[in-house]
Order: sequence, then structure tokens, then C-alpha cells
Amino acid sequence: MKESEIIEAYFVRANNAELSIGDDAAILRIPEGYDLVVTMDTLNEGVHFLKDTHPFDIGYKTVAVNLSDLAAMGAMPQWVTLSLSLPTLDTEWLSAFSKGLWTVLDRYHVSLVGGDLNRGTLSVTLQAHGIIPRGKALLRSGAKPNDLIIVSGQLGTAALALQVLQKKITLDEATLNDILPALHRPIPRVELGIALRDIATSAIDLSDGLARDLNNICEKSSFGAKINLDDLPMHTALKDENLALSGGDDYELCFTIPAEKKEFLKSLSEKLNIPLTVIGTITEDSDIHYYKDDKEVKLTIAGFEHFS
Amino acid sequence: MKESEIIEAYFVRANNAELSIGDDAAILRIPEGYDLVVTMDTLNEGVHFLKDTHPFDIGYKTVAVNLSDLAAMGAMPQWVTLSLSLPTLDTEWLSAFSKGLWTVLDRYHVSLVGGDLNRGTLSVTLQAHGIIPRGKALLRSGAKPNDLIIVSGQLGTAALALQVLQKKITLDEATLNDILPALHRPIPRVELGIALRDIATSAIDLSDGLARDLNNICEKSSFGAKINLDDLPMHTALKDENLALSGGDDYELCFTIPAEKKEFLKSLSEKLNIPLTVIGTITEDSDIHYYKDDKEVKLTIAGFEHFS
Repeated sequence: MKESEIIEAYFVRANNAELSIGDDAAILRIPEGYDLVVTMDTLNEGVHFLKDTHPFDIGYKTVAVNLSDLAAMGAMPQWVTLSLSLPTLDTEWLSAFSKGLWTVLDRYHVSLVGGDLNRGTLSVTLQAHGIIPRGKALLRSGAKPNDLIIVSGQLGTAALALQVLQKKITLDEATLNDILPALHRPIPRVELGIALRDIATSAIDLSDGLARDLNNICEKSSFGAKINLDDLPMHTALKDENLALSGGDDYELCFTIPAEKKEFLKSLSEKLNIPLTVIGTITEDSDIHYYKDDKEVKLTIAGFEHFS
Repeated sequence: MKESEIIEAYFVRANNAELSIGDDAAILRIPEGYDLVVTMDTLNEGVHFLKDTHPFDIGYKTVAVNLSDLAAMGAMPQWVTLSLSLPTLDTEWLSAFSKGLWTVLDRYHVSLVGGDLNRGTLSVTLQAHGIIPRGKALLRSGAKPNDLIIVSGQLGTAALALQVLQKKITLDEATLNDILPALHRPIPRVELGIALRDIATSAIDLSDGLARDLNNICEKSSFGAKINLDDLPMHTALKDENLALSGGDDYELCFTIPAEKKEFLKSLSEKLNIPLTVIGTITEDSDIHYYKDDKEVKLTIAGFEHFS
């Protein structure tokens, strides 16, 4: 198969672009009154996913992690571009990969409009493009003292599943099957992000672990936080808060809302069928304090670094 | 150095985005009456550049090849996002790479607004974002019979330089130094693309070699072409037309204009200081015919395929 035939077979579909795959570049139209929101994430074999990961899951997750970043901005996803490097031409791999990719794209009515196909070590780079009404984006910098700190879903489940696959720990098969989707098929919180546009004062995508990502919100907002570790939403298979705080790969949203808007949380959680848990509050000082059984605990958590 | 420190040291600069590096995504504003034009290209070590290529040149070329695609659309480049995978943290490498990158970005007043930094086999993916007044984009599909076919610059020079570096042929040092910039530091024809918006009927970026890229224009336009090989603009070090037709990596523009607009070429060429050479005409039939010394020659040229 020629490159053009591979692209035609697996990656060309009806789309919502002014001009899509097939020219030197794609042409996209931003509706009046909206801004463009862009994010780019790469997944490398052996770094972001284990060597024997199913290609469907690689395709799925590549889209999901990028849409998760758009969700954290409150943006509506519209288009993606994809650069795929493969060591060899394996049509079975491509078929499964593209099915995973389209599963998430179709779910959110997102079009694949361009990209690049190359020979190389297995690596997938995706750029997601969303739109947001001007001035409505959720930033990391808007948290205010007394705001409630909320997280969606559960934390640490993906990191726990990875530890099982890496044979660092063992779990019974039923539990493993229960937690594997958190690792391989995270659900980007697109609808939640959009619903938070007029409620949240700040938001971030939880990809590096709560401790580090919350630190980012606090630094950018120039305030501190008080977190109750007893309130962290975790799978029953997690023995302590360690992975929930620093495991990463959660792709949940962490956001802040003014305390008086707390009433919205319950109806929002029910409407979207997403657990939303208050885990603490923003404080005037610039430090982050963690409490367990009403006693302060000191954490030494670094979060993931690529080059350390 | 932490990832955030690497990004701060080499990749954060003043920019023209609504929101740039530092949040979950970047926010870009498209001026009223304009569309967004996007293109993404990856360069992998050992595939797109040789293992001992200077990092300055890798940074430079990554931007140049993407801006070349925007140029072929007649778009004005505005922003780029960058995903960089590195096997180890080498600040000397990063410093030189980023200098090459900024050399081209600064030349065209383009901002780096986001991306990703990862551990992995050396690989660089860049997405370039341009803007174009609605309806003004140069497509591959607009060529009409009797249109003149024109190429900018010289063809085959980059491919010749690569053959020397691969030790397939030898050239004297003066000649090699003369042709190396074509391989390492191609000049994206941004100003030319913009100037062609109201003149050209079609355009393409010459990255796969003239034969294959011209074939793409003819297929998309549903017409054929007649090419005079004697007219191909080539460096004197090229012995025949082979590399000019199929070497690839030229990053020149091939475009078509109505015959009556030929007069514009000379003044355009002088104004932009870019050689513009008429190499043939578009024909009614759907085949491409090559002529040398007024005799037709049959070519069997495939152009570059990643998986063949």
C-alpha cells in the first residue's frame, strides 16, 4: 500500500472542515464570536504506553488525552490533526488503531482534517482544535480564596492499573478488569468543561497527579489550598492516597467554584452522570496543606518528570 | 532541569496569542473575514534527517517545511505548536535546536504557543497555523488547460547534497558548501505564496519531487501537462534531471497561472528576488508528457514512499 492509500483507507472520512486531507494544508472556519483553542500531545511507545498495548487503546487514548485538555478550557472540540510514525506497515495494527481513534472522534463529532504519516519508532502526536466563546475559557489562574476545590471521577485508578501491568503489584482479575478502562480508555470530561464555563473560577486537566496539578492552579492563581485527603474519591482497591496524589494519567478535571455555587454541583453531577467531589478549599496564603483525620500531613510528592 | 524549566529556558517568548504556553491549551484569535490554515509535519532522525545533523538545522528545517506548506496555500503564518521527543536531556542540543527554530519563526513573526516535551527517540512534530482571507486559498485543484506551469528556485539541489552526505557521490568542497543550504536550510516561499493569491490557479509545495507533486496537481485538477525538461531550473552540479524530478525535499512552490498573466512573473521574481521559471503548460488530456530536445521521453519515477 502507498501512503496515500493507507490514509484513504483508514483516515479519510466525511468532515466539517472547509478543506480537509488532500491538499498542502487544511482550512478551518472559526464561528464569529469564538476563539480557537489548541493543544498537542504525543504518546511514545515505552514511555506513554507499554510495548504490548492494544492499538485500539493507543488510538482511543491519543484522542482522549487531547480532548481532556480542551475540556479543561471549557472548549468544544471540533477538529484534530494526527502525525503517526510506524516502524513497519501493519494493516491489522492500523485498522485497530484507527477504530480506537474514530471511537472517540465520533463520540464528540470531531473531524480528522490532516496530519502526517512517517516511518519511525512508534509514536503518535495529535493536535486537538476546539472553539470557545470569546472570554469564556477556563484558565488555571482564576481561583480565589474560599473557592471550593472539586475533582471529577476517581483519582489514582489508572496508575494502579499500570502498576499491575508492570507486575509491581497483583490484583484479582475482577478488580483489574474494573480498573483497566481508567488506564486505557479515559473519558475526556468535555461536557463537564463546557458546563463549567459560567461556574468555575479555574480548571486543570489531571494528567500529572493531583498534587502537582493543584500546585499549578495555586501558583498561577497566587493562592494556597487546604485539602482533606479523607475526601479524595478513590477506587476501593487503592490502599492509600499516594497514587491518587501523584500517579497521574487520571484525565479528570480539577476545578474551583465560589462556595455559594456549591448547589450547582449535585444537579450537574446527576445531569452528566459524573461524580463530583469537594476535596478542599482555596486559601489566602500561598501554601498547600494536606489533612488526614483532621491532622496535617506533610507530603513529599514530585509528580512525573520525563528527564529526572 | 525540570520540564517546565526547559520549556521556560528555550521555548517561552513574547507572543501574539490570546493565551500561550502555560495552561491546558493555547487560545488563538482569527481575524474577522479570515480562515485558519493548518499543516503538521514530523521529522524523525534517520528518516527525515541523518543521525549527525546539527540541531540548529533540525530546528530550522522543522519550521521551514511547515511554513512551506502554508506558503503553498497562500496563507500568512501566525503560530506554531511543537512536540519534541528526546532520548536524553542535552541542554547544548536544546540550545542549538531552539536557535534554529527561532531563526525561522522570528523571520516570519510567528509565535510558538504550545506543544509537548517527551522522552523518546529523537522526533520533532510541528503544526503551523496560518490565516487566509476567506476564499483566497491556493488549492491543488484549480489548474486549467493552457495555464503555464511555474516553479520557484532550483530543483534537485537538496537531494544532490543528501547524496554527498550519504557518500553515494562526491563533489568538491566549494560546490558542496554551495548546495548544502538547500538541504539544511530551505527558504519557505511565504511571500511568494501570498503574492500568488490573486494570480495562481493552483499551487503545491515541492516536497516529494516535481514529478509526483505535479501529478497531484493534474489529478486534482482533472487535466494533464506538458513539461520541457530542458527548462527545469537546476544547479550546474546536477548531471541530469533525475533528482530534479524525483529527489524531493525541494520546498519550492510549483504553481499554475493563466497564460495572459505571464507578464506578472518577471516583476514578481525581481521584487521577491526568487527565480521563477516556466517549465510547461497544463493540457486538456489527463496525462503528463515530458519533452527533451523537443522529443518526448518516458519517465518511470515513483517519488518517495515511506513504506515501500
